[in-house]
Amino acid sequence: MTTALRVALAGLGTVGGGVIRVLETNRELIARRAGRPIEIVAVSARDRTKDRGVDVSGYEWLDDTTALARCDADVVVELVGGADGPALALARATLGAGKGFVTANKAMLAHHGAELAEMAEAARVPLKFEAAVAGGIPVIKGLREGMAANAVSRVYGILNGTCNFILSKMESEGRDFGDVLAEAQALGFAESDPSFDIDGVDAAHKLSILSTIAFGTRPAFADVAIGGIRNVTAADVAEAEALGYRVRLVGMAQADASGVFQRVHAHLVPHAHPLAHVTGSTNAVVAEGNFVGRLLFQGAGAGDGPTASAVVADLIDIARGEAGPPYAMPVAALAEVAPAAAGAQRGRAYLRFAVADRVGVLAEIAAAMRDAGVSIESLIQRAVPVEGTALVVIVTHEAPDAHIEAALERLRGSQSLAGEPLWMHILD
Amino acid sequence: MTTALRVALAGLGTVGGGVIRVLETNRELIARRAGRPIEIVAVSARDRTKDRGVDVSGYEWLDDTTALARCDADVVVELVGGADGPALALARATLGAGKGFVTANKAMLAHHGAELAEMAEAARVPLKFEAAVAGGIPVIKGLREGMAANAVSRVYGILNGTCNFILSKMESEGRDFGDVLAEAQALGFAESDPSFDIDGVDAAHKLSILSTIAFGTRPAFADVAIGGIRNVTAADVAEAEALGYRVRLVGMAQADASGVFQRVHAHLVPHAHPLAHVTGSTNAVVAEGNFVGRLLFQGAGAGDGPTASAVVADLIDIARGEAGPPYAMPVAALAEVAPAAAGAQRGRAYLRFAVADRVGVLAEIAAAMRDAGVSIESLIQRAVPVEGTALVVIVTHEAPDAHIEAALERLRGSQSLAGEPLWMHILD
Repeated sequence: MTTALRVALAGLGTVGGGVIRVLETNRELIARRAGRPIEIVAVSARDRTKDRGVDVSGYEWLDDTTALARCDADVVVELVGGADGPALALARATLGAGKGFVTANKAMLAHHGAELAEMAEAARVPLKFEAAVAGGIPVIKGLREGMAANAVSRVYGILNGTCNFILSKMESEGRDFGDVLAEAQALGFAESDPSFDIDGVDAAHKLSILSTIAFGTRPAFADVAIGGIRNVTAADVAEAEALGYRVRLVGMAQADASGVFQRVHAHLVPHAHPLAHVTGSTNAVVAEGNFVGRLLFQGAGAGDGPTASAVVADLIDIARGEAGPPYAMPVAALAEVAPAAAGAQRGRAYLRFAVADRVGVLAEIAAAMRDAGVSIESLIQRAVPVEGTALVVIVTHEAPDAHIEAALERLRGSQSLAGEPLWMHILD
Repeated sequence: MTTALRVALAGLGTVGGGVIRVLETNRELIARRAGRPIEIVAVSARDRTKDRGVDVSGYEWLDDTTALARCDADVVVELVGGADGPALALARATLGAGKGFVTANKAMLAHHGAELAEMAEAARVPLKFEAAVAGGIPVIKGLREGMAANAVSRVYGILNGTCNFILSKMESEGRDFGDVLAEAQALGFAESDPSFDIDGVDAAHKLSILSTIAFGTRPAFADVAIGGIRNVTAADVAEAEALGYRVRLVGMAQADASGVFQRVHAHLVPHAHPLAHVTGSTNAVVAEGNFVGRLLFQGAGAGDGPTASAVVADLIDIARGEAGPPYAMPVAALAEVAPAAAGAQRGRAYLRFAVADRVGVLAEIAAAMRDAGVSIESLIQRAVPVEGTALVVIVTHEAPDAHIEAALERLRGSQSLAGEPLWMHILD
């Protein structure tokens, strides 16, 4: 057996501890598969004295995280997190020093991926990030390599486990958003400040990474239209179910002649679609290629074991010498593609209005739809237990998003509406 | 851009034509992703004059397939088929000549995989076979690389599209096996001699390949216990549905302290399991790792586009220089593991008996179960429209397969039974 791959590890939180456990537990098997042992040589974290359930006394300890870039390792693994700050400083220092870099940091990649990939190419060292998207699911590899023969038209999926946990709990227990969120926070499934997850930013980071690899286009996180699940109610989930759908937060990227369109938004997913059966904190990604058709990748999207599994898979690829350009092709070969206009996207829509229960409300909504050129497929009005209000749910025929937007604009400020309408896209 | 990867193609059937179409249609994208162009330089097939819908006039034509091994190519793609004969001769000649080899030939790999992998290692050239299992789904890559950090306990799935097409049609239309098979043959979804598919041999070839990569053990096709779907009736599908299950032909390999167990058999899959929602000719593979948990890979298991997509993905890996040992580790490092005894496997069983409708039949069956130590979870007896017969369906509690076998043995030759009982395993 040849020389070991020497690894430095920055960040000893749950995933960092998981990486140590994977490398210890499966040591012999990993060495057989990688063709050489993989050894941690140095670590860095905020608190040296904390009990992490793993023994780190055998590794060199560096108080200064950035100093890992100069230690005696072949690869640095970054599990510190944050788009900038120490993580970015470490990435730049490591690649600048000509060492390989493995990260689970989707925020940093969304904002600085192209720069880091260019540094890796210039230094001819690997930059890998399987763990940054969908945890343990090898979807970066699936797109970068498994689907490499295909022009990809769409890549989409359930990319945030916290949102899916909340939505499927709302669905199975008929409870409201705030209630389930509070429980998820108490159980540790949601952060005390949950906005990164529930407002769609985390999913958008991941989507922009998938998009780059799927389409061979430059990273364009700033172009992702981002929405979350904060305004989805128990009533919406129930209405969706009655119509044959489940509510999911879907990150969707599609490429056509008009450009690349990226959006994270609450969607109605038909029961017959595999994403409708993805429950709890599971993630799933669908990609559609011009020869392979539709592929589905599903598994655990977070957690120390699954995320560490993806980090170590990257290390094994590096140990084997099977790691090429991070985005499947050199950054210079990535196409500069304009973002497609959101308004030009076409689809069916779910619109929910809380309305005053009085004469003429329905006529007003119906007229706004008609005047914006939106054709109604079905409409349900229900009395709700709040005095004097009713719920109106509309499913539209396929229309450009701009027309839906115009219809909602016509109704803005109307005395008939109690609160903001909710718009969800319907996945076809 | 550097030198092209030069490819010779043996076999110009639907998949061979598909490979040419993929390389032509996505030429520019593939060159960007592979870092160099991929060019077909020579082809060989049985009939030079046949119209294949693709132009092969620009390639060198060799009447002798084996001669491709000596032509001016870096890699030979074999799409001839058959475990031995011309395909095997070509594989040996190609690897012997120090050229890379890509194949979709599961039968050849099941029987000669270890020998060919050793030749590839000795010559330090790639041997790749993504298309041999589950068509376009990158499951070889998913196991070999994506899950490489994990000890895998089970790998299983729907590996034969013809069987799944028949079973899901029986399910949705309430029709009987023979009837649906005849339609599938007329539509070209099943061969005129369908036994390779419906008796489980094709799925067993694929399972033995997955098994080797998942567990790091030597290929052991001879150890696969093989069953098919020929004896599954419309009544079985209906009873399964009533019990909350769907019938699927599942290839299942599991590894534990007692060894590796491989079986292809009709299973009852609970509605809550993702495999229950896999319909038509779609394939799906589940793998369970000790850190990543359960991963699911799903997509088209056959067809010219998907299969060609997998073949070209292998060529792109080779063009990138990202192709290591075929079975993830050198053949010498694969463990020699004894096959686990079939009788020691434990699980719940579905047993269906066609019985004479007379006094004492149920007592006889129940006594056979009791005497073999099999505990009954539920039992249904139904009259059937055939004069004087009834259907008895038993779901057992978990028991060793040897006990079920013993119970059926006790009933063998009984005057109470009309025809062979059917035994299906229940997926947990």
